Amino acid sequence: MIPDSHQTYAGALDIGGTKMAACIADASGPLLRLTEPTLRFGTPDTIVRQGVRLLDACCRQLQLDPSIVQSIGVSSCGPFELRDGALGFVPPNLCGGLPNGDDLPNDWIFLPLESVLRERFDTLRIANDCVAALHGERAFGSAPANSVYVTWSTGIGFGLCVDGHILNGKAGNAGHAGHMLLSENSDALCGCGNRGDLEGMIGGRNFGKHLNKPLAHIFDDARRGEPEALALVQQAASWFGRALYNLTAILDTQAIFVGGSVWRHNESLLAPLVRHEIDSRFPALTHGVTVQGATLGELVTDIGAFALVMPQDWMTGWRARRPWETLASVQLGGT
Amino acid sequence: MIPDSHQTYAGALDIGGTKMAACIADASGPLLRLTEPTLRFGTPDTIVRQGVRLLDACCRQLQLDPSIVQSIGVSSCGPFELRDGALGFVPPNLCGGLPNGDDLPNDWIFLPLESVLRERFDTLRIANDCVAALHGERAFGSAPANSVYVTWSTGIGFGLCVDGHILNGKAGNAGHAGHMLLSENSDALCGCGNRGDLEGMIGGRNFGKHLNKPLAHIFDDARRGEPEALALVQQAASWFGRALYNLTAILDTQAIFVGGSVWRHNESLLAPLVRHEIDSRFPALTHGVTVQGATLGELVTDIGAFALVMPQDWMTGWRARRPWETLASVQLGGT
Repeated sequence: MIPDSHQTYAGALDIGGTKMAACIADASGPLLRLTEPTLRFGTPDTIVRQGVRLLDACCRQLQLDPSIVQSIGVSSCGPFELRDGALGFVPPNLCGGLPNGDDLPNDWIFLPLESVLRERFDTLRIANDCVAALHGERAFGSAPANSVYVTWSTGIGFGLCVDGHILNGKAGNAGHAGHMLLSENSDALCGCGNRGDLEGMIGGRNFGKHLNKPLAHIFDDARRGEPEALALVQQAASWFGRALYNLTAILDTQAIFVGGSVWRHNESLLAPLVRHEIDSRFPALTHGVTVQGATLGELVTDIGAFALVMPQDWMTGWRARRPWETLASVQLGGT
Repeated sequence: MIPDSHQTYAGALDIGGTKMAACIADASGPLLRLTEPTLRFGTPDTIVRQGVRLLDACCRQLQLDPSIVQSIGVSSCGPFELRDGALGFVPPNLCGGLPNGDDLPNDWIFLPLESVLRERFDTLRIANDCVAALHGERAFGSAPANSVYVTWSTGIGFGLCVDGHILNGKAGNAGHAGHMLLSENSDALCGCGNRGDLEGMIGGRNFGKHLNKPLAHIFDDARRGEPEALALVQQAASWFGRALYNLTAILDTQAIFVGGSVWRHNESLLAPLVRHEIDSRFPALTHGVTVQGATLGELVTDIGAFALVMPQDWMTGWRARRPWETLASVQLGGT
């Protein structure tokens, strides 16, 4: 799967529900990163073709002939679905043809990925964005053989590593633990149709919706001790902690790495409450489990996408120099 | 890990909370199985030494010198704990020294396994009983690369296989999904100390406790349409189904195999209710997931323990002849 070390360039494509990022790298590190709002109308292949265009634009800005980049790692929002033997995806936040998609300007029910990318690239690996992030944390961070990566932002997604093996599942959808049911009472509706799952209750898009103010304000109010906001944040941390405990019991995890904007901006408030939900459980299952911020920062999914297709000798150099820390990122288009 | 094919005999030891089974096999299949109630008093090494004695007794009944058996697979209740580099176990149903152990005639807080067994056997592999069962289902049943084994009896335990790899976790405790929190309201107390986890709510030891009648009667009443019993059984099936859905979302599972007495005796009543909890969720995560009875029957953990240490050429023969289906089992001691 990993191409040989004669490879000169590699591409990384990160497809999110609101934003897409394309990045080109060589042995020295990532060279340029372009981002653009993810398109939401047109034919179902719109998004993947936007990704190819953005990668090609990246090449041209670097004064490279795009055809020289033949190897690409893709990190994408999910879930994935196999159709006619090729992987595509069915993201509830982008597909207007799904039951909850009335607010989206399209009637998409399935978006191709693999079939279009195969036309253009020789070497291709596709992973869920949090799975890619965990590949990055494993390759360049400090994630041990039994570890979990979780992002708490608009949605909540996971990458899972057990016994040194990063889990894929039958269609690459392992790690959709944001859709784990936790509450039998909550009527919070998730994009997937569940009521009472983790993402429906505390994903950034849903959490505190009834207060009609931005999430950052709710956290500010909680920090000032405003009772309603504080109770809401405590409840959210408790749900998040219960989900992390569940994964610890299910997978016998050693270390949990947390990324995403909700966590990053509020870690000091959330972390003790989350820890309590783990530490108060059966010690034989929870003793010594660590919870910490992701070590690769905001580029974790891009770096993870490169890790999927990177030659081994690049990896050694990148580990030593951490070149992504000084990467230029250029935002294209409106928001 | 798998010994070479010159091996003549192998042992399997299945350590449960109420019963222990020892079994000796050769290339032709399992030769004899002895069972005994698990001891509950003495020094903490009582149980593992009982296991060695039972294996040796098995040899003697077969007129074998016990020292000829040098290879052993162990399936054991858990959870496991590593102490001084050697695996032992901390089963809440056997350890009187744990917080909920007042009704047990001992003050055990940790039971050795590996340190004692290494004195006697050259080749040793230890797995949680449900993990061993899944090794059995993978080797001799029809479990695909992404599958779950679950037993619903006194407790509820799981074995998890993702991408063809059966999950162990940092101390061999992957699969303790019976301790997954599902309810925020239930005050059902699990042996692990949780309230509202799967095993605490519907494990055979806890389910319907307040009705003060045997579980079999509750199911009989439900089948006759008695409203209270029927509601209770429906609720239990719903919790079980929600747990299986959660694992499907977390692991991207393809097939779920269910064993254990509660399921085996009531499958026709439970299965449609369990299926509904899976089929009513986001199709991209749940489409095509199958739920079926375990294919190896009651000896699944013993066969799984053999599968841990069996030479490859035995496996081929056993697959063809299914010799465990005619195995003699002898029960020793009182119940």
